[in-house]
Amino acid sequence: MEKINIAEKLSLFTDHWNPRIVASLNGQHVRLAKLLGEFVWHSHQHEDELFYVLSGELCMEFRDRVVTLQPGEMIVVPRGVEHRPVAAQEVSIMLFEPAETVNTGNNEGELTRKSLHNI
Amino acid sequence: MEKINIAEKLSLFTDHWNPRIVASLNGQHVRLAKLLGEFVWHSHQHEDELFYVLSGELCMEFRDRVVTLQPGEMIVVPRGVEHRPVAAQEVSIMLFEPAETVNTGNNEGELTRKSLHNI
Repeated sequence: MEKINIAEKLSLFTDHWNPRIVASLNGQHVRLAKLLGEFVWHSHQHEDELFYVLSGELCMEFRDRVVTLQPGEMIVVPRGVEHRPVAAQEVSIMLFEPAETVNTGNNEGELTRKSLHNI
Repeated sequence: MEKINIAEKLSLFTDHWNPRIVASLNGQHVRLAKLLGEFVWHSHQHEDELFYVLSGELCMEFRDRVVTLQPGEMIVVPRGVEHRPVAAQEVSIMLFEPAETVNTGNNEGELTRKSLHNI
């Protein structure tokens, strides 16, 4: 039951597309990640996924449009909806999603991270 | 699937201890609230509760200690743990918690808010 300083946690890693767990509650995770470049198109069959931008500009691509998020903005991507996060420059985000959520959803590959670290 | 701007949502209300729902996912809510003064001692039997400070300084009192949170800091209060949020000056927070969470937990009274509004 210690407090969690988000800036401090972000300073502990530099790699991209590799979420870290900073809190677990009610079967959910709060994760932090740094993004740069284009992720893969994917969806999550059973999990809604919340992206909250901490720094940088995140383009959340959907098949029919793009939503651009600035720091202090969030979006919920419902289960089943194909999406692709794109970061032209580095973006830091907080994720809120079920603990079993795999980052690449139905599109397993090089960027899949199945065992996440707590920081 | 619209983006949610947290500062804009916060500008839509001014009252204290009356959480608004800004997002729902996986049976959970993201809620925003403004706090001022002392809340009531309470615990939640079945819900862990996450407090993330957006502005101001929040003192989270426990029976044996106090954790002081600044903007950009969060704490998870596990189910069953008695706590009391105290804000000497106005604090804005984001809450992540199960949709069924009642703000005053086991200590129903004047500050209980059972039907929350979406904003």
